[in-house]
Amino acid sequence: MQASGLVPRWEPGARERLVIAAADLFTEQGYDATTVAQIAERAGTTKSTFFRYFPDKREVLVAGQETLSRLLAEGIAEAPQGASPLEAVAAGLERASDAMGPMNRELGPRLKAAVAASAELQERDALKSVGLAAAMTTALLARGVPDPTAHLAGELGVLAFKRGYAEWSEDERHAEDGLARFTLAALNELRAATVSLG
Amino acid sequence: MQASGLVPRWEPGARERLVIAAADLFTEQGYDATTVAQIAERAGTTKSTFFRYFPDKREVLVAGQETLSRLLAEGIAEAPQGASPLEAVAAGLERASDAMGPMNRELGPRLKAAVAASAELQERDALKSVGLAAAMTTALLARGVPDPTAHLAGELGVLAFKRGYAEWSEDERHAEDGLARFTLAALNELRAATVSLG
Repeated sequence: MQASGLVPRWEPGARERLVIAAADLFTEQGYDATTVAQIAERAGTTKSTFFRYFPDKREVLVAGQETLSRLLAEGIAEAPQGASPLEAVAAGLERASDAMGPMNRELGPRLKAAVAASAELQERDALKSVGLAAAMTTALLARGVPDPTAHLAGELGVLAFKRGYAEWSEDERHAEDGLARFTLAALNELRAATVSLG
Repeated sequence: MQASGLVPRWEPGARERLVIAAADLFTEQGYDATTVAQIAERAGTTKSTFFRYFPDKREVLVAGQETLSRLLAEGIAEAPQGASPLEAVAAGLERASDAMGPMNRELGPRLKAAVAASAELQERDALKSVGLAAAMTTALLARGVPDPTAHLAGELGVLAFKRGYAEWSEDERHAEDGLARFTLAALNELRAATVSLG
């Protein structure tokens, strides 16, 4: 009695289940009221499994930040020599976006709800944005992009990533698409908007 | 035996002394190790005076955020009808900058040192930047500036404020100057940089 066609597109591992469980519990019952034991139980793992992946409950929701920063910076560093600042940022966005799969997409709305419900997570999330911008700015400066162009391009990169990620993850019609298309479209939109700043 | 010419340019009140004391103690001995009692003692006040101004030690360092957001938004809202998005942002920066006095200037390097030394304060500081950008973006959207131009202009406004504030507060030669000159110059520099984004 196997239901063909109902094979899940992906099978979350322990780490993924912990992230989903944490986001859902934070949203349902609040960040403060949620314990590591509850997260582990919801995810079907043990507390010691939790601590193998994360130092504490707050870090669950920003778990990918270091990887993301690294990918953005690598993409920028390896962009062709003649690439403009925004072309280099696009290469960074593409590198990072291509590493994002169905798990990241399904997490989007859950993370958003959890962050909206907790001042502490809002702070952690804000610091994440600052960290991503800094990673891109540093990589651009290393390419010889002068300041403040490098800072500006780094900020545009973060805005593009966040806007593209939101559009990708909040619309069921995009379930089969990769993230890159959305982050690159958002960057183009932002670039176009620079001419109407006045 | 009055030393003429040595009259201080400004005399900090209890609230100002508490902010300075907190920033200095955070830098000297770390954020975690600093208590409200120590801050109050250093400032020459009592704990109950502290709690009349601030809910906890962390809020000391972002005390001006709500005022700052309000002034930025008001300046944007009241800019002339035909003002471009960045001209409106400039009006917001000018309004907010004009409210900053010698106390804010002297605090700059102290705050920077305290924030650099504490992950918790970095998060609070990052959230402050996000809040200021949101305040400006919301005010721009209310003027009819379309998205994503409004978001972009809001981010430029925050970058300009931070860059201008840093230059103003980190150079003793600027002690007699107002902040507005520096935030507006930074905004112009960022606007000029948009053409080299590529």
